[in-house]
Amino acid sequence: MDKPYVIGMDMGGTNTVFGIVDARGNVVAKSAVKTATHKDINLYIDDLYNELLILINSVGGVSKIRGIGVGAPNGNYYTGNIEFAPNLPWKGIIPFSKLLTDKLGIQAALTNDANAAAFGEMTYGAARGMKNFIMITLGTGVGSGIIIDGNVVYGHDGFAGELGHTNVVRGESARLCGCGRKGCLEAYASATGVARTARELLSIRKENSLLRTIPIESITSKDVYDAAVEGDEIAKEIFNFTGKLLGEAFSDFVAFSAPEAIILFGGLSKAGDLILKPVVENMEMNILVLWKNKVKVIISELKEADAAILGASALVWEL
Amino acid sequence: MDKPYVIGMDMGGTNTVFGIVDARGNVVAKSAVKTATHKDINLYIDDLYNELLILINSVGGVSKIRGIGVGAPNGNYYTGNIEFAPNLPWKGIIPFSKLLTDKLGIQAALTNDANAAAFGEMTYGAARGMKNFIMITLGTGVGSGIIIDGNVVYGHDGFAGELGHTNVVRGESARLCGCGRKGCLEAYASATGVARTARELLSIRKENSLLRTIPIESITSKDVYDAAVEGDEIAKEIFNFTGKLLGEAFSDFVAFSAPEAIILFGGLSKAGDLILKPVVENMEMNILVLWKNKVKVIISELKEADAAILGASALVWEL
Repeated sequence: MDKPYVIGMDMGGTNTVFGIVDARGNVVAKSAVKTATHKDINLYIDDLYNELLILINSVGGVSKIRGIGVGAPNGNYYTGNIEFAPNLPWKGIIPFSKLLTDKLGIQAALTNDANAAAFGEMTYGAARGMKNFIMITLGTGVGSGIIIDGNVVYGHDGFAGELGHTNVVRGESARLCGCGRKGCLEAYASATGVARTARELLSIRKENSLLRTIPIESITSKDVYDAAVEGDEIAKEIFNFTGKLLGEAFSDFVAFSAPEAIILFGGLSKAGDLILKPVVENMEMNILVLWKNKVKVIISELKEADAAILGASALVWEL
Repeated sequence: MDKPYVIGMDMGGTNTVFGIVDARGNVVAKSAVKTATHKDINLYIDDLYNELLILINSVGGVSKIRGIGVGAPNGNYYTGNIEFAPNLPWKGIIPFSKLLTDKLGIQAALTNDANAAAFGEMTYGAARGMKNFIMITLGTGVGSGIIIDGNVVYGHDGFAGELGHTNVVRGESARLCGCGRKGCLEAYASATGVARTARELLSIRKENSLLRTIPIESITSKDVYDAAVEGDEIAKEIFNFTGKLLGEAFSDFVAFSAPEAIILFGGLSKAGDLILKPVVENMEMNILVLWKNKVKVIISELKEADAAILGASALVWEL
């Protein structure tokens, strides 16, 4: 192949990781720069450029690179812009694809991180051969990438697929979400949501729990996982509660796009059956008869360390 | 054009209406047969055939017909089957497209009634030129047709777009829906849902209302509309409540596919601003900041009497 490599880049609030990927999905070289420390986007681009050039030269130079795919919070596929991302240091609208192309001289494609993960799963992971599925990313937030007829759903404005911000709890007691609204799935099923459930449950309940050995304000979803693995009842209840809300939400998602599968990705999905079992149970309990026992819920098959790079790189094959 | 006409057919639980449509969307001839009285599908097909033949011959015979498009409850575009439709006299799986083609010798396309309405709106109505919108049909039930990138979303199995069966009220007090589950949008925003809200509100409230002149069990959504037009406070409250649930649901639908517009179709949409105003208010109040004041909610422009025929006929141009 004339240009045998693509670059995949995953921009997070703290770090930006990137790698060179061949057509078979092997990450042949990778590196990273800090995101948060660059208050000026131009200094960030300079830093990125220097690190990228080392990788690019290691595979024979820019002429070997087909393009660069980027997954970024609030990334818009249509415009190539990052728009009003609350967790990035640059405010307003950043024309990121254009900045990259101007600097590197290679074409760039950008989308949000969950869409990139969905692309990666379809190209290299558990969704190979699937035309209709939904990717749910359970991380600091809850993101989603929706695939219909083999294409990512971008919608009218490029921002479709914000399933973390659909309502799962109504009424006064619903939790405030980071988006400023109440009762969003993200306020419950994200890593921070799980930690919050832990704090709430520990304060209203009297039972012993391994979690009580940790200062209540510093409990993380990882702590809850570790306790659940040890058989801790409160920790298991936290997973059951989280799985219930996810499963109920999934039954509504299915009514929208009738996917073949819903794929879980990111931190919380590593809990395996602890989260999968209550999700499936509650989804099946709430799903329209039409779809009972028809929709798979599976955990991502992408290799954790390379998943984000692979996902973003998969974007380029669409260019 | 060699075959200048298509046939559009809308199958309801009571009647089946159909018409011959030209390429500009004029219904040049139409007729109807009873649905419910034919317990045997073959007798229904015979009856349909005889009536269709009269229409077909009036435009010059079968050689002038490009195809027949059918909107039917639980119609599956992929298979051409009507599957387990609760409101039709025939049970199980009916290979309806095949039966029609075998009988008439013309190609047939079938989908559910809400998808047909969405097709019609895109081809002849308020959604001309739109690539991303959601059609919500407010009739005896609540149906939906979802258009993404100019295509109807059928999903993995052909049944996508059951937004009437997404959850809008959780907990013990949620209404039982005809589907056997609780809290579905359809249990509140359908014509029967509105009538039910009227009965509930009249029984717990003491105010005078024009609706109190009607025997409580026979109040219809049309009665509520008439009373609201006269300025009746309880009737207006019923519309506000219905609009609130619809608007809240719409804010979640937008998070899925980021449509340019949501289009209301069917009985309740004829209430105009009485329903539109609370829908828009509540959608805007609950929508993610990203989409505030960006998504139009509009009422179908299709001529009521011909809308279903036009919608179904529009299917054929896709064949």
